[in-house]
Amino acid sequence: MKDLRQITIIGTGLLGSSLALAAGASFSDIKVVAFSHRASTRKKARRLLGDAVVVDELTQSVLDSDIVILAAPIYTFEGIFKAIKSSLKKGAIVTDVGSSKVLPHKWAKKCFQKTVHYVGSHPIAGSEQRGIEFARDDLFDGADCIITSQKSTNKKAVSVLKKFWSKIGCRVIEMTPAQHDRIFAGVSHLSHITAVSLVNANNDELLKFAGKGFMDTTRVASSPANIWLDILMANSDNCVKGIDNIIDQLGKFKKAIQTGDSKKTKILLDSARNKRAKLIKDKLRKREMIP
Amino acid sequence: MKDLRQITIIGTGLLGSSLALAAGASFSDIKVVAFSHRASTRKKARRLLGDAVVVDELTQSVLDSDIVILAAPIYTFEGIFKAIKSSLKKGAIVTDVGSSKVLPHKWAKKCFQKTVHYVGSHPIAGSEQRGIEFARDDLFDGADCIITSQKSTNKKAVSVLKKFWSKIGCRVIEMTPAQHDRIFAGVSHLSHITAVSLVNANNDELLKFAGKGFMDTTRVASSPANIWLDILMANSDNCVKGIDNIIDQLGKFKKAIQTGDSKKTKILLDSARNKRAKLIKDKLRKREMIP
Repeated sequence: MKDLRQITIIGTGLLGSSLALAAGASFSDIKVVAFSHRASTRKKARRLLGDAVVVDELTQSVLDSDIVILAAPIYTFEGIFKAIKSSLKKGAIVTDVGSSKVLPHKWAKKCFQKTVHYVGSHPIAGSEQRGIEFARDDLFDGADCIITSQKSTNKKAVSVLKKFWSKIGCRVIEMTPAQHDRIFAGVSHLSHITAVSLVNANNDELLKFAGKGFMDTTRVASSPANIWLDILMANSDNCVKGIDNIIDQLGKFKKAIQTGDSKKTKILLDSARNKRAKLIKDKLRKREMIP
Repeated sequence: MKDLRQITIIGTGLLGSSLALAAGASFSDIKVVAFSHRASTRKKARRLLGDAVVVDELTQSVLDSDIVILAAPIYTFEGIFKAIKSSLKKGAIVTDVGSSKVLPHKWAKKCFQKTVHYVGSHPIAGSEQRGIEFARDDLFDGADCIITSQKSTNKKAVSVLKKFWSKIGCRVIEMTPAQHDRIFAGVSHLSHITAVSLVNANNDELLKFAGKGFMDTTRVASSPANIWLDILMANSDNCVKGIDNIIDQLGKFKKAIQTGDSKKTKILLDSARNKRAKLIKDKLRKREMIP
């Protein structure tokens, strides 16, 4: 990646700051610029983000950058696009690390001229922890990174970005934003909605007796609420379909249990167990899981 | 526990065989007798269960035992009660490690004479692994163990059993079988139903993209289907109520997302996050979790 001289990361939460560290570790000769809108976070960033240059002004942070990566809440994207568009250099690539992709593509299309290339990125990495304090340069190691592109997306920009994420340590998969949002509504956003609903379905008296199973099933419900609010709202149609799907499944379960239909209940239990066994086998094969 | 000379464990799956090992390790001078209905499992048990005496006949296994512990699927309990009742010594305590408690109490009441004392036990321990191969003598260390008793339950038997589980390493909590089944429908059985439904709501194309969050949320869906079939069927009324509760919660989520009601969605996310934070704080305080 000889042409890559400078990248800018907007937002220094867990993902943004981990990316700053990972980029610093993966590329020997690029300048990493980081921006946070909070002065207190910029102060921490100067201490914690190694060689990254932390700047005070959003527009200044993107000047001369080859790749600008938004690692901020999704609903700030449109405003940031508008704010930075005149400061971007010709041919600059803009991307993000958000968990919904249709809306960012829409906003980018509306906002940027043809000399700026937006491509969506969604590295499947993170934790229920948040903030620059938890930044790790290996957060993206071995993670899938979805790159989203449309017919109108600049092919060269896609190719540069694929190389960028590969070098960071990700396995890159390309798809359309619509595909992305449909898939992640099912396996990620619905997981979150379900975990939250399971906690909310129990009162404090019952929760006292929660065991390891419950804690694991609901782990993601401890993730930052504001980030998830944005993700769910930015993918609302698919999330609603996902909720309908799981309510449908729960209804089948209810009917089978209520009517004492052991055979049907066993089929539901077996189906999930077998699907998950296949999934684990695939993950072991792809080395996404360790035995 | 001077009077405790012999215990019998019926069933040598993960829980039964771990209990045989734990009892052997916790009591210096008791005889641990174990029974499995499978000859091949008895062979393994003779190799893996230390000093435990593995016997070939169910009725023979309970002779002279002070405590008989069923660690078999719930729906085998009634048959086992009937089979062993004439072989139990006067004053014998019968218990089990099943996850539903109302039905076992009912069956015991119907089956045993007044000289045999049934008390329910539910040690909150286990894993998604199964079988004697995964037996561990520390499986119950620090686990909660619910003891269930009714007005008619023999108080002395409850007291002996409390001491027994404490010595094994559990924190003992006493409640009625009805309380137990209501509580665990919410925090355990519903977790399971939800995890299974979440897997079944996604097809293989989507599952390929499942990340760590999804894997954790659905971990319990890999547990043995036949064991869970019994648990759910034996607590069907409470499970149906639990399903209604979570469908209700999911419906609120759907409405909030569908109508773009960020405020309401945020309330749902925050509520779960706060409840879970409180839960984690409690668990850290009780040393059920390590920071």
